This record gives sequence, C-alpha cells and structure tokens, in this order.
Amino acid sequence: MNFKIRRAAKEDCKDISRMIMDLAIYEKMPDQVKISHEELERDGFCQNPLFECLVAEVPDIMVSPVGNGIGTALLSKVAEVRLLGKKKQCVRLQLSVLNWNTPSRDFYAAKGAQDLTVTEGWHAIRFDGQNLDNLANEAPKD
Amino acid sequence: MNFKIRRAAKEDCKDISRMIMDLAIYEKMPDQVKISHEELERDGFCQNPLFECLVAEVPDIMVSPVGNGIGTALLSKVAEVRLLGKKKQCVRLQLSVLNWNTPSRDFYAAKGAQDLTVTEGWHAIRFDGQNLDNLANEAPKD
Repeated sequence: MNFKIRRAAKEDCKDISRMIMDLAIYEKMPDQVKISHEELERDGFCQNPLFECLVAEVPDIMVSPVGNGIGTALLSKVAEVRLLGKKKQCVRLQLSVLNWNTPSRDFYAAKGAQDLTVTEGWHAIRFDGQNLDNLANEAPKD
Repeated sequence: MNFKIRRAAKEDCKDISRMIMDLAIYEKMPDQVKISHEELERDGFCQNPLFECLVAEVPDIMVSPVGNGIGTALLSKVAEVRLLGKKKQCVRLQLSVLNWNTPSRDFYAAKGAQDLTVTEGWHAIRFDGQNLDNLANEAPKD
C-alpha cells in the first residue's frame, strides 16, 4: 500500500481528535475522551510540547483496515524516532493494551515485546478528578 | 515525625541512585537497575530535564520505615506540584505497582485511586534491547 509517514502538524489536530475518539469507541470507552482538538493544538504545538505525533498519509481512496502495514510502520517509526534522536537516549518503548484486545497483544508479542502485567505482575494505578485534588490538598505546606 | 520535602538537587543523585536500588531489591528485581548516578545527573539536571524529583529530608537519626507519613507526604506533594504548576495542566497521576505489593495497592485504593488493570483490563507492554532495535530497523525510510 502506498502511504507516507510524517510528523503531525497543528492542522492535523482535528483529524487526530477524531481518531482518538475512533480508538476509544473500539476500546468501548468513548466517554473517557475529554481532550478537544484545541487542547491538542495548544499542548502539542507550543514551546515545550507535551507530546509528539506521527501521522500516516494515505492517498488511496479505498483503505482496508486490516493488514495494510500502516500500524506496523507507525510503531516502527516511533521506535526509530526515539532511538535515533540523538538527545533522546531512549532505551524503552512502553504502551498499554486492553486484555481482550487479542490482535494487538499478539502483534506486540510477535514483535518481541514483553507483557509486564503477565510476566512481572505490574498494575496501572490512576489518580484523577476528586481523588487527585484530595491527594494534592494533603500535601504538607512549605 | 520531623521532615521536610524539597526538590532534588544534582548533589542528591548518589542517594537517589541508592534508593532506586533499594526499591528494586524490595521489588525482587535488582538486576533491572541499569541507570547510574552520573546518568541521573545528566538527564535530570540539564536544559530540558527528562524527570523531576522530590526528596524528603529527615533530620532524625532513627527512622521507622512503617507509618512515618513520609510516603504519603511525597505522593501528595507530587500531586500538588503537578496540579498547581500553572503550565502543567495535569489531570491524571499514573503509576505502576506489583500485584503482590498489597500494602501499596491498599494505600492507593484508600486514597481513591483506580486500579486500571483490575477495572478495565489494561496491560503494560514493553519494547527494549534487541526487540526495540529490530522494531526501529523495520521503519520505512523517508
């Protein structure tokens, strides 16, 4: 398939926002998407960006969502950008996957990644909303 | 207990390095510690630091490791620093914990945190070493 991978530009944020929602729908948690494309523009395209993003440009009108190689290419490109960026000194690439998402888990395993939750027992813990505010309010005053 | 929390300085990196190893020994994976105090100094105390760190200064000679309130204070301070830093716009605080580390899991739960591995099924996936190199080498050339 004919496609090109490039760094995202500010103008891509509406499309990125839509794809975040598409992913969340696949993950059965669309209500968890809170970020707007305006916030993506603000956070990713400022003096000290909070994230970097790659996009795949696909000129073809018809795209098969399965086995087109775009996912592999994007993930490989992330690894390459992190490893080759001279200032990055990246030694790990970590990501999260849902336990029922067998195609993705099989894909990562086939690429040699380790499932740390299975092999070592790591759990992901999240503070947010009121419990994060409460935690911050407990901090000792200077 | 009498203690003070402050931002880490470059001079703290040897102590931080020792405490990273202490934690890894508790987690039964001391062989996974690869970073040296020189690398901590380089990565944390440069123009664009890759991490920030808080330390608790304890003047007492005798310190009880259990229930001294230092852990809670440090975690709360992290939440406060992230929430109150005007440029940070932090809405989540995420961390990882081992499944057999019941004291820590109970502590996070008591503070209202969500265990995303239990409630939603998230697994942590890691690429590193040769499999990360392989992945990067698969990237399409520009």
